[in-house]
Amino acid sequence: MKIIFLGTSGGMPTGKRGSASVAIKRKGELILFDCGEGTQQKMVLAHLGFGGRMRIFISHLHGDHILGLPGLLQTMALLRREHPLYVYGPRGLMEFIKAFSSILGCPSFPLEVFEVLDNGMVFSGSEYIIEAVRADHEGESWSYALAELPRPGKFHPEKAKGLAIPEGPLWRRLQHGEDVKLGDKIVKSAEVVEPQRIGSKIVYSGDTRPNEELVRMAKRADLLIHEATFNDDMEDRAKEDGHSTASQAAEIARAAEVTKLVLTHLSSRYPDPEPMLINARKIFPETQVAEDLMELNIQA
Amino acid sequence: MKIIFLGTSGGMPTGKRGSASVAIKRKGELILFDCGEGTQQKMVLAHLGFGGRMRIFISHLHGDHILGLPGLLQTMALLRREHPLYVYGPRGLMEFIKAFSSILGCPSFPLEVFEVLDNGMVFSGSEYIIEAVRADHEGESWSYALAELPRPGKFHPEKAKGLAIPEGPLWRRLQHGEDVKLGDKIVKSAEVVEPQRIGSKIVYSGDTRPNEELVRMAKRADLLIHEATFNDDMEDRAKEDGHSTASQAAEIARAAEVTKLVLTHLSSRYPDPEPMLINARKIFPETQVAEDLMELNIQA
Repeated sequence: MKIIFLGTSGGMPTGKRGSASVAIKRKGELILFDCGEGTQQKMVLAHLGFGGRMRIFISHLHGDHILGLPGLLQTMALLRREHPLYVYGPRGLMEFIKAFSSILGCPSFPLEVFEVLDNGMVFSGSEYIIEAVRADHEGESWSYALAELPRPGKFHPEKAKGLAIPEGPLWRRLQHGEDVKLGDKIVKSAEVVEPQRIGSKIVYSGDTRPNEELVRMAKRADLLIHEATFNDDMEDRAKEDGHSTASQAAEIARAAEVTKLVLTHLSSRYPDPEPMLINARKIFPETQVAEDLMELNIQA
Repeated sequence: MKIIFLGTSGGMPTGKRGSASVAIKRKGELILFDCGEGTQQKMVLAHLGFGGRMRIFISHLHGDHILGLPGLLQTMALLRREHPLYVYGPRGLMEFIKAFSSILGCPSFPLEVFEVLDNGMVFSGSEYIIEAVRADHEGESWSYALAELPRPGKFHPEKAKGLAIPEGPLWRRLQHGEDVKLGDKIVKSAEVVEPQRIGSKIVYSGDTRPNEELVRMAKRADLLIHEATFNDDMEDRAKEDGHSTASQAAEIARAAEVTKLVLTHLSSRYPDPEPMLINARKIFPETQVAEDLMELNIQA
């Protein structure tokens, strides 16, 4: 999976950072977490395209997380998108889309909107699932996890042949992890199939105070993308506004034992993110600060 | 007056061009024509500020001309703007603002919205006026002119003294262009006051087909900012979609006898605007193609 940080600012954009959005490119499908103002232009710059398979997950209905959606839908319509678009988000998302569509016109392609009502599975595909937990922010806000499903291990037909197992149903059972009986001999699946391949997990916090539920969902994730709106000296303000500091995000990463932490949603008061990075790395060394159009590759 | 082109793309943004917006900085006041997605970030880049005196004139309610407004209002609220903001535009503008405010919250500063109903004066200030004429586009669309009012010429008190005119009411009458009688001598205003200073005029087309009404409004303007969504070979498509070609914009500039023409709102199909510029200059040599963040100074 390739992760592209489309917008990394908190609250208002700066000259260098646009409003919140993270794209995940996965086998020709695009998954977006949030869609702040300017997302469509960043998608152009990142060469992501507007016509392909795509799902958008909105964390909450604040302007800096959703105001790129109307323009994105318009551009998709202008380019005669045909694929359906799936958009997930908190209660009120439908009303928001209806409100601007009533003035700007409805999208000409199929648009399916799902409102997240409770913690748990939001989308379940054949290769990955999306889970949500309530974020600790204003109103209804969600954090999301994308978890790839485990894939069966690699099957070695030459080994099966070497053990004189005839091609056919026995091969399939071995491939699916079953041990089989051949005459009076037991052939173990592990003799011809490599171990199951575990998928990657990527977690996106949206806006939130430090949240134990998020620690649970992010457990051993390959990548945690966590907001750090403020630096440590503004912990009181962060608490008041429903946000996290750099060190709080790092504490969450450490508690969840993730592989990597990326800080995003930085307040415009921090033109230089270095001091936040230094604070976070004291707690969780594998930390990076996101920049607009920064790319990361995550592989299980 | 300083003109800053904040967004110069038509329909959808490109990597280099954001959605439509033009800013005019005039004596500490900011006047915006249109407010497409991304305008607030361009305002940051152009160091225009969010707290000062400001009026926004919206040409029409298409996404690429208005979707920067919700985020701009949010940022102004975040920065605790106190000055009122005045927004003018077609019928439906109020409904649009209400629609997103119902979900994102109402601005915390005074917001005054005016819907333009007919050709004529839209705003009349002590130093300039804004006039509107119907554009030839879809639905209700407007072109705008900003015309500075003429200012009295410079008064030379030393000349008045030399003519033995006593300071007081006679000076004021002379300053306002009146000739005065002093004993049996007539003193002409022109003897002590320089000629009236004519103001500048800037005209913004919004989206439109070539329009005779616009020629009238733009007559002898210092600057005409005209859309050129298409190059000349797509004249039929331009007509169909309610737009102009590069050469059509140049014809309007020539007919209106303006000093300077700037083409904007270029379709994303033209990464290189040079061929459009060449076509337009054949008809109207004083033509430029706008780029995002390009600046121009206009002085009467």
